[in-house]
Amino acid sequence: IPNKPVTIEEIEVAPPEADEVRIKIVATSVCHTDLYHLFEGMHKDGFPVVLGHEAAGIVESVGSGVTEFQPGDKVIPLFLAQCRDCRFCKSPKTNQCEKAWVEHRADAMSPLRSRLTCKGKKVYQFSGISTFSEYTVVKQINVTKIDPAAPLDKVCLLGCGICTGYGAAVNTAKVEEGSTCAVFGLGAIGLAAVMGCKNAGAKRIIAVDINPDKFEKAKVFGATDFVNPKDHDKPISQVLFEMTNGGVDYSLECVGNVGVMRSALESTIPAWGVSVIVGWTTLHDFSAPPGDLIAGRTWKGTMFGGFKSKDGVPEMVNAYMNKKLMVDEFITDNMTFDQINDAIEMMKHGKCIRTVLTFTE
Amino acid sequence: IPNKPVTIEEIEVAPPEADEVRIKIVATSVCHTDLYHLFEGMHKDGFPVVLGHEAAGIVESVGSGVTEFQPGDKVIPLFLAQCRDCRFCKSPKTNQCEKAWVEHRADAMSPLRSRLTCKGKKVYQFSGISTFSEYTVVKQINVTKIDPAAPLDKVCLLGCGICTGYGAAVNTAKVEEGSTCAVFGLGAIGLAAVMGCKNAGAKRIIAVDINPDKFEKAKVFGATDFVNPKDHDKPISQVLFEMTNGGVDYSLECVGNVGVMRSALESTIPAWGVSVIVGWTTLHDFSAPPGDLIAGRTWKGTMFGGFKSKDGVPEMVNAYMNKKLMVDEFITDNMTFDQINDAIEMMKHGKCIRTVLTFTE
Ligand SMILES: NC(=O)c1ccc[n+]([C@@H]2O[C@H](COP(=O)([O-])OP(=O)(O)OC[C@H]3O[C@@H](n4cnc5c(N)ncnc54)[C@H](O)[C@@H]3O)[C@@H](O)[C@H]2O)c1
Ligand SMILES: NC(=O)c1ccc[n+]([C@@H]2O[C@H](COP(=O)([O-])OP(=O)(O)OC[C@H]3O[C@@H](n4cnc5c(N)ncnc54)[C@H](O)[C@@H]3O)[C@@H](O)[C@H]2O)c1
Ligand SMILES: [Zn+2]
Ligand SMILES: [Zn+2]
Ligand SMILES: [Zn+2]
Ligand SMILES: [Zn+2]
Repeated sequence: IPNKPVTIEEIEVAPPEADEVRIKIVATSVCHTDLYHLFEGMHKDGFPVVLGHEAAGIVESVGSGVTEFQPGDKVIPLFLAQCRDCRFCKSPKTNQCEKAWVEHRADAMSPLRSRLTCKGKKVYQFSGISTFSEYTVVKQINVTKIDPAAPLDKVCLLGCGICTGYGAAVNTAKVEEGSTCAVFGLGAIGLAAVMGCKNAGAKRIIAVDINPDKFEKAKVFGATDFVNPKDHDKPISQVLFEMTNGGVDYSLECVGNVGVMRSALESTIPAWGVSVIVGWTTLHDFSAPPGDLIAGRTWKGTMFGGFKSKDGVPEMVNAYMNKKLMVDEFITDNMTFDQINDAIEMMKHGKCIRTVLTFTE
Repeated sequence: IPNKPVTIEEIEVAPPEADEVRIKIVATSVCHTDLYHLFEGMHKDGFPVVLGHEAAGIVESVGSGVTEFQPGDKVIPLFLAQCRDCRFCKSPKTNQCEKAWVEHRADAMSPLRSRLTCKGKKVYQFSGISTFSEYTVVKQINVTKIDPAAPLDKVCLLGCGICTGYGAAVNTAKVEEGSTCAVFGLGAIGLAAVMGCKNAGAKRIIAVDINPDKFEKAKVFGATDFVNPKDHDKPISQVLFEMTNGGVDYSLECVGNVGVMRSALESTIPAWGVSVIVGWTTLHDFSAPPGDLIAGRTWKGTMFGGFKSKDGVPEMVNAYMNKKLMVDEFITDNMTFDQINDAIEMMKHGKCIRTVLTFTE
């Protein structure tokens, strides 16, 4: 049902087949990609669907062929699979998994196959997982086991937002020590990118957002400069050019707006600037003059921050447990799952970073 | 005089100032970028101009501050400067030189300052050098000394085309051994890119051109497959996807057409494909859906193949002298300079790879 967040009580979750795991979701948060599908992309073949892809839970039951998990394991479902077996999984150059591609319909943001039904009719699983549900069934390549001591109502954020932004900086942009960075968009993705730049040793991190309420939080994660494009008559790339004597070394687009993607590219220094597209949209193409790249810039994109998901998420959980990674600081609100529609409205109006929703018994 | 190639006899070439070198041009070739400026870009601030930027010559005289060159040295003028002193020249990450930027007008393709006049009026120096002239005066950062044994009517091609295409493959794309590559456009730039892929150890090199007359030559440089987009109803990226089980590892756009730039990008394998824009145009922006990059591709561009010009060109001359690099094979015609208009017409109609023009005493 496009455009109408609803809570449906009658979703049926099938028992796990041979290579599947059924998970009891304990905590889930809302990411802008859920809003994108619901309000912006609204692909006609993508509904009805159960949204949600940033969560943590406990294994309830496993299929006959599953040996990696057992009931009671703490897990994080993975919208990006890692089968460890395909040519992509075997290459250190990518975090894509070829097995997951075969069935995925990118525009519709879900595979054709689903394990959820409502009154006997198929309901799609958003990005193959669907976490806005008390239970969900996913393939074993779409779930990873984590430290049993990890608090699920915190590490659920590692299921998408934090890994995506952080990895965009450290894995995809490969931010170097002493460099100057700009992060466009200061939701959880952008703030995690700021944290990634900081941990990589960037000496200056310019935080850019049209909502100045976000700047305070950006400071917590390490931003050194704050720019609201609305405060300037000049193009934002020109503003950053002047602030940095020729452009930043790295920029990260964490908005999902093709105009901002171009600004982010053109804010980098021509000779060696690297710009990474993190924000998602299928509504428009990005564009730029060839000379922007010929002058020496590199344009990249990232899915899930370049992390191989099954390997990377437990490592990020450990980093959090060892106090090497901030997670709690992203959580601005805690609610129970029945308040999901309020959580979505808050994100829509820029009133939160991440709201964590927990299921009550 | 846009659109009208002419030979003017009355150009005055000033004597060299302190940091300048006056060069007697011995041989020059025609590159598509000359045609671009004359027939396609036609920027209103770029005329009158003396074209030409791919040449070799002999130092005639030097300015008072010049110690690196002396009369009689064999040299190649460099449209991309290398001052060895600015932050770009000092970084291994780029071949741009910041000093050259200050005065350069990118759209007009020449600096404001010129050392050429015609009947007392300023005539611009194309890309700061102008080699369609018996003599030219350039800054010492825009010229490099080469092996005195090098044949100037061959190595003139190292002033632009061969270094650009070859370097695009080895320096910018960083083609790896055993990889699959696609080169779009088989002029001198594209053929040199094919040679670069081959020397880097690519196991499969797909040569793409809408002019099938170019395929024979591409084979000489190492191409293994030949595709004419006109022979297919499907988009060329789809054709290459099927030929290669998912896309090529590297693609190089050597045409200067934004539609081909997108095709080249989308012909690469999503997970780790790298596409390099080599062709030049200011007429349109390139574009693509964000998902193309988010899936794992990288989009780059190259100027002069990423070579630091003053260092790189003499090394490429040496590689040719040591038979590690083909140069003669690019030369399809030899003419005297008074036939320059014929040479331009031939390139315009796809009837040559490179024509070398020599000045007769
Ligand atoms: N590539 C991936 O794997 C991946 C994963 C998760 C999310 N995403 C995408 O990342 C983007 C951000 O997600 P989020 O959850 O952080 O969203 P969010 O809504 O919490 O944050 C977006 C921020 O961008 C700001 N913004 C809007 N327009 C702007 C402009 N013109 N200039 C500067 N800032 C602007 C907003 O004020 C807001 O603070 C979304 O597009 C989402 O779909 C991508
Ligand atoms: N980046 C740089 O530093 C740099 C330096 C030199 C030249 N260039 C540019 O490189 C490009 C090539 O230069 P050149 O001298 O080799 O030109 P050229 O005219 O000799 O070759 C261009 C080739 O592209 C082919 N072509 C045209 N449309 C095509 C299409 N749709 N699909 C496939 N092939 C197509 C033509 O048939 C021709 O063989 C030009 O745009 C030039 O301006 C860039
Ligand atoms: Zn997300
Ligand atoms: Zn895989
Ligand atoms: Zn050229
Ligand atoms: Zn320099």
